[in-house]
Amino acid sequence: MGKGDQTRGTILDAALDVASTVGLEALSIGRLAERVGLSKSGLFAHFRSKEALQLEVLEHARADFVQGVVAPALAEGRGLPRLRALFDNWLAWGRGEPGREGGCVFLQAAAEYDDRPGEVRACLAASQRDWTGALERAAQQSVDEGHLAAGTDARQLAFELYGLMMSCHFHTRLLDEESAPNRAVAGFERLLASHGANRP
Amino acid sequence: MGKGDQTRGTILDAALDVASTVGLEALSIGRLAERVGLSKSGLFAHFRSKEALQLEVLEHARADFVQGVVAPALAEGRGLPRLRALFDNWLAWGRGEPGREGGCVFLQAAAEYDDRPGEVRACLAASQRDWTGALERAAQQSVDEGHLAAGTDARQLAFELYGLMMSCHFHTRLLDEESAPNRAVAGFERLLASHGANRP
Repeated sequence: MGKGDQTRGTILDAALDVASTVGLEALSIGRLAERVGLSKSGLFAHFRSKEALQLEVLEHARADFVQGVVAPALAEGRGLPRLRALFDNWLAWGRGEPGREGGCVFLQAAAEYDDRPGEVRACLAASQRDWTGALERAAQQSVDEGHLAAGTDARQLAFELYGLMMSCHFHTRLLDEESAPNRAVAGFERLLASHGANRP
Repeated sequence: MGKGDQTRGTILDAALDVASTVGLEALSIGRLAERVGLSKSGLFAHFRSKEALQLEVLEHARADFVQGVVAPALAEGRGLPRLRALFDNWLAWGRGEPGREGGCVFLQAAAEYDDRPGEVRACLAASQRDWTGALERAAQQSVDEGHLAAGTDARQLAFELYGLMMSCHFHTRLLDEESAPNRAVAGFERLLASHGANRP
């Protein structure tokens, strides 16, 4: 990795912190330059505009999400083991890594951009459709493998898993409820059981 | 209602539109003055500071929520009829009224303030604790009335209802999925059924 790439990575890590705490819109090149100790013109050399920076931050987060959530789950067996791994890894990712300041940057950005048409919204929506698609696929494979009851609506399951995760994020971060991750797991297990899964 | 109150109501309605689309932080007195056609000093006469305005907007939204969601449900019978009414009214409120621009201002604000300590966050968290408390109470009454199985964890149920609502909001507003409200209702019915309720 060259020095330019390292600098770029440092900038994007800092930008992700800002985006997941105060939001992608608050991510000005000036603010970020101050934070990473570079000149504004130095940052402009890396990112041509605020929107280009925002799009790169989303891509940086997506790559981090794939590496931390999706890839390890693909190493698990097809069907319920993989679906469980996706959910567990997702919960852990949403809680944030020790060095990260904010919560889930995608939920933060969803609130910011759902009413703002444009490239950032389109990029965010595409990444979230990929993710709900991955959940749906893992749920459908669980049905195909006989781990969940035939006739289970995989898309509905993915919709409800999304809700458990969002509620967990909300109860943890705004309401300071430490029991929220356990509640999300309890909801997940009840949901699977109601679709014919056995407890692990 | 005096003229001052009317003006105040007009300002707060406009402020709520801004807050539910681009956020409470973007709600500057200057921006709002332009929108409602008043001078900045005229607005300052009504609200002493940006934070005072933000707190009043949250209070305005809370009053609207109580009037549109909670009060009509209290007219329904204790137990499951009331819990169903709370959920249905909540879904309708989250979709927004015809005249309202944005989505749910509380979910918008939750993303903005979960990492910003201060009075706005405290006010928001208090309103949301009131609401999860109301859901939990209606769920517990459903158990007490024999509408849901004994041993149902009312707090867990409220946590999961929150998730269905959040997922509905997310799928509707960011992913443009028109089927989301039906999915939320399907999840609600499955959740009640798994706790022993009969379909209505």
